[in-house]
Amino acid sequence: MSEESRDLSDKRVNRRRLIGGFGAAAAVPVGGALLGGLRLERAAADDHLPEGLGDIIKARELTPEDVAAALETYMPSGKMDEFLMFTSSGHAGQVYVIGVPSMRVYKTIAVYTPEPWQGYGFSEETKAVLAQGNINGKEITHGDTHHIALSETNGEYDGQFCFINEKTHGRMAVIDLRDFATKQIVKNPLLVSEHGGAFVTPNTEYILEADQYPTPLGVGEYAPLSEYKEKYRGLVCLWKFDREKGKIIPEESFGIETPPYGHDLADAGKGASDGWAFWNSFNSEMATGGNMEGNPPLEVGASQRDMDYMHVVNYRKAAEVAAAGKADKIKDFSVIPMQTAIDEGIMYLIPEPKSPHGVDVTPDGEHIVVAGKLDPHVTVYSFAKIQAAIEKGGHEKDEFGLPILGFEDCMEAQVELGLGPLHTQFDDKGYAYTSLFLDSAVARWSAGKDGKWELVEKVPVHYNVGHISAAGGDTAKPDGTYLVALNKWSVDRFPPVGPLLPQNLQLLDIREGKTMRPLADMPLGFGEPHYAQIIRTEKIKAWDAYPQEDGKVGYDAIADDWHPAGTMVGDEKIERNGSKVEIWMTVMRSRFTPDNIEVNEGDEVTMHLTNIESAKDATHGFVLGGQNISLSLEPGETETIRFTADTPGVYPYYCTEFCSALHIEMAGYFLVKPTA
Amino acid sequence: MSEESRDLSDKRVNRRRLIGGFGAAAAVPVGGALLGGLRLERAAADDHLPEGLGDIIKARELTPEDVAAALETYMPSGKMDEFLMFTSSGHAGQVYVIGVPSMRVYKTIAVYTPEPWQGYGFSEETKAVLAQGNINGKEITHGDTHHIALSETNGEYDGQFCFINEKTHGRMAVIDLRDFATKQIVKNPLLVSEHGGAFVTPNTEYILEADQYPTPLGVGEYAPLSEYKEKYRGLVCLWKFDREKGKIIPEESFGIETPPYGHDLADAGKGASDGWAFWNSFNSEMATGGNMEGNPPLEVGASQRDMDYMHVVNYRKAAEVAAAGKADKIKDFSVIPMQTAIDEGIMYLIPEPKSPHGVDVTPDGEHIVVAGKLDPHVTVYSFAKIQAAIEKGGHEKDEFGLPILGFEDCMEAQVELGLGPLHTQFDDKGYAYTSLFLDSAVARWSAGKDGKWELVEKVPVHYNVGHISAAGGDTAKPDGTYLVALNKWSVDRFPPVGPLLPQNLQLLDIREGKTMRPLADMPLGFGEPHYAQIIRTEKIKAWDAYPQEDGKVGYDAIADDWHPAGTMVGDEKIERNGSKVEIWMTVMRSRFTPDNIEVNEGDEVTMHLTNIESAKDATHGFVLGGQNISLSLEPGETETIRFTADTPGVYPYYCTEFCSALHIEMAGYFLVKPTA
Repeated sequence: MSEESRDLSDKRVNRRRLIGGFGAAAAVPVGGALLGGLRLERAAADDHLPEGLGDIIKARELTPEDVAAALETYMPSGKMDEFLMFTSSGHAGQVYVIGVPSMRVYKTIAVYTPEPWQGYGFSEETKAVLAQGNINGKEITHGDTHHIALSETNGEYDGQFCFINEKTHGRMAVIDLRDFATKQIVKNPLLVSEHGGAFVTPNTEYILEADQYPTPLGVGEYAPLSEYKEKYRGLVCLWKFDREKGKIIPEESFGIETPPYGHDLADAGKGASDGWAFWNSFNSEMATGGNMEGNPPLEVGASQRDMDYMHVVNYRKAAEVAAAGKADKIKDFSVIPMQTAIDEGIMYLIPEPKSPHGVDVTPDGEHIVVAGKLDPHVTVYSFAKIQAAIEKGGHEKDEFGLPILGFEDCMEAQVELGLGPLHTQFDDKGYAYTSLFLDSAVARWSAGKDGKWELVEKVPVHYNVGHISAAGGDTAKPDGTYLVALNKWSVDRFPPVGPLLPQNLQLLDIREGKTMRPLADMPLGFGEPHYAQIIRTEKIKAWDAYPQEDGKVGYDAIADDWHPAGTMVGDEKIERNGSKVEIWMTVMRSRFTPDNIEVNEGDEVTMHLTNIESAKDATHGFVLGGQNISLSLEPGETETIRFTADTPGVYPYYCTEFCSALHIEMAGYFLVKPTA
Repeated sequence: MSEESRDLSDKRVNRRRLIGGFGAAAAVPVGGALLGGLRLERAAADDHLPEGLGDIIKARELTPEDVAAALETYMPSGKMDEFLMFTSSGHAGQVYVIGVPSMRVYKTIAVYTPEPWQGYGFSEETKAVLAQGNINGKEITHGDTHHIALSETNGEYDGQFCFINEKTHGRMAVIDLRDFATKQIVKNPLLVSEHGGAFVTPNTEYILEADQYPTPLGVGEYAPLSEYKEKYRGLVCLWKFDREKGKIIPEESFGIETPPYGHDLADAGKGASDGWAFWNSFNSEMATGGNMEGNPPLEVGASQRDMDYMHVVNYRKAAEVAAAGKADKIKDFSVIPMQTAIDEGIMYLIPEPKSPHGVDVTPDGEHIVVAGKLDPHVTVYSFAKIQAAIEKGGHEKDEFGLPILGFEDCMEAQVELGLGPLHTQFDDKGYAYTSLFLDSAVARWSAGKDGKWELVEKVPVHYNVGHISAAGGDTAKPDGTYLVALNKWSVDRFPPVGPLLPQNLQLLDIREGKTMRPLADMPLGFGEPHYAQIIRTEKIKAWDAYPQEDGKVGYDAIADDWHPAGTMVGDEKIERNGSKVEIWMTVMRSRFTPDNIEVNEGDEVTMHLTNIESAKDATHGFVLGGQNISLSLEPGETETIRFTADTPGVYPYYCTEFCSALHIEMAGYFLVKPTA
């Protein structure tokens, strides 16, 4: 045999052997993919395989699926994740930013809970943001964040802002994605608790919110539970957002009074259903518990009826009605009374099975998917059918007089998926994905693709999945790449860390031509993310440092403007006015100027600190013991602290963010001289 | 050619081709390793390689090193990390638990900063822990954590406790690793700031601490900076730890007065040097800044001299001296005066170059390694030589009368490593590892291995590495497996998340037969870990739930005992005594009992909540709006809340930890009836 013919023969046999090595499944080429063996050869020839590959795989007992998942998720140093996931943190009160597919945490953004690493809630500027969320004048240092909403333009994430609701007190926060900092908290004056937010309209004109547990409208309003039907109410709400100002405008926002049904989730219409919004409800029984008095607990009382009600709201018309002066003012907030909503054709009910949790609009806006956690189906409603049913008229009414559209009139399909369906996301190929809490699984189903509404496959997740988040999966243009299952229990997935276990965020691959594949488990042991949104990294245009111009330094991150006390090198000073001392300080590697400050016991001290650096990552921290002060001064930023020097003594202040080899020496002495 | 001979020939050619594919370096077998090609074949034959391997590698542009690192660090679902890393969080005030090699965050343990997800600082029990750290009676809600210390038995981590210092206020905390919860905070009554802790003695008899910036001893003590030499002092301190009680015992702890040199890091002797402790200092110049008054800033003033002083302390003898009544009591704390320390031969100084940062004892205890950040060498001292020098007597004295041992008498070796050496760790093969801040590198050097003290190799890290942590790397028996570089700047490593950037914790492989290999970058965007310790996972014996026995339920995690208000099902009650209301509540899937509570405006409310579940992961949260209450009730736990019902209204309370399909229904109403 000639060398040449033997070489050909070698190739053939080599190829056969390698293919055999992949096991039965891999031996059959799938779709247009090349044969595994050829790929291996090519990869090897291109120097992409390391020495000792097999040893590592064996030592770590990796399966072929593990090997693939490792290679799909590993992020080499300096390479960027394709996506960023913004998640709520549950009752940690914060927002987390996580890379996808690497599932690494890039940042905590402090929102409702003070956080000293980023200095949030310790400067006068950030204390003022937190104070916007005070309840009855009381400082609240926690929050229960549930649903993140990235700002959208034409139904797609635009990477400019992020909104996050707070369930315990009915609050909403605005985060600016130039500096990833919380700029505003608004307290809904009528909601005591809330849930159905934040969800934005396709151009972020409004942010949706609603009550969770009905109460008399407004903190401070009392009525006994015996008057529940008469005096307790729900409220669906549209916060007006001003993109230029980067702020929610409460005066231009409004709510619509609803029966006390207990609202859960919401979604804004888009495309075909633009201008409409959808909220579901879970307690149309109007149960209120009372289990010490012999009544069924809420979990039983609220699960009696086969149907609750989806609330279908024409919010554009509602805005016109409110603007026309037909809304009441309750606690300075515009509320369209239920009867006005009925009279003006603003709100309709549609039966939905049973104690539903998620309500999710399809990318084209033509359908609304409801998952009833006590019903094994998802129910799909057609927006066109809803409109036709509204047109038809002659509706039944609930006991509050709200029109009820016919279930069969509006329903497009029901798809049996499994036990405990909760939330639905979408891809770019006509599939929907629904979490199954009781099954601990994610279902992929055909959402009208080729006219079919049917289950395609299910993949187990670990365990008790709540929300799921697909890349762009609630927008008009889903990416169809990755999906993260936000699992509530982790039980046996991770090493022992005591009785309080981490969550398990599981990354799934939902790309074309593949069945869903779990790629990685991500423990998250510092909060309980409920909902997340996944945006392409390239859409985020964040600042590396705060603005600096010739002759100007010192930016106020909260005011989004030059800080009036911004200080240049050489302009540092200490001014005394009676018992008031004001200090303008510059901060740079590796010194504070001034680095000696003496005041008298009892002096009221105001200190403005300007980080005059412009280099990326040149952040300095500042602490002063005994005064509860911890600042994070990013390059170009000015912040102010204020305190009374109430205890004599010597208090070192120093930089907390390791900044240079002489970081330890970046310190000063604050002396409080005792009064005689 | 027969089929058989062709087959043999195929194998040979196949092998050649695959080896060639690895590139030049891999084509040459290294050490005893098998040829890459054979390994690949074997791996393939064992079904360990996935379909589409090459496609993934190409699409993601992975180098052979990336592929190996991916496979070394990927953690399949349900498989456990070999190690757990406990890190400080810097000024976030917490402790993080991170898996190694997967570099995933399993938990935040709240220590100095309240944290609502784990309910820390919101129950009466945990508020009392935080209040132990009050300063001048003032609540402090932040802390600057630096150095973690796992408890040790015979110089090895035993997995029982974890200690963490707090620099801003001179505090120390105890974490129990059965439930990963903070059980105690002690405020050092004499330290205003601190740094040289926590470091434990080999059997955790004592925890080391020292001042960072000297002050008059004690919060509240004033003296002008002009009296620095006379009235400002340092203090090295040994906190007595009682393992049975799981508590630091302040009455059995003591300090030793030192000159005001500014202490930095510390380490306890072990083996040969057991009973001794070592602290370095960085400002023997006694500079105090004053840059607005024309003095050099501290960074310049403290960097004048070529040598500072290592403080060598015989702490066993010091304990005897303190026990013999030769210590002063200052603010109820035992302090051995400097002169007594001199007279009793308790403390010696040794010159050390220059503004040193780290002081680290070798695994056998025979040498002490000091890294001077302004000197390119590490300096190695011999404990035997130190003892000989002490014996020899006739020492020079510093201006406070402390004996100074001769540098040349005590020094064993100096090894030039590069710019900005900071901290040193060890492996099990005779190598030491030192971080190089200015070089952004980690150096491996021979620490007396085969009689050699010399640099072996350096590997770049990204960027500005502070501490490093090797598995067991500061114990008597290092593991020699993984090392984590705690890099302070990340600059271009990660996607844009605003001006405040994450840290970069970089995992290196330091196993036998390999040069150091970077395996993974871990962004950490919620704190600034300074020091970390890496323990074998199997040493952690954590509880899955709090103890439960027949007839007993309700554990008090802080008291480490049955909670007097633990409540069984059926024993729930509401008791009223004038304006005081006390409630015993049970908590289980998916109800609170009672779920309706009505009190009168102004009532003082005490509520005891018992999670009666025993299932692992069956945690329930509890929030009550407007009262700043957020609890995390782990299975079997009882906690108490107390508040004044000062505002009338209707306040839903609910479970915040998603626990069942009817989690949303796990709620109740707390009504505050207005007074007439």
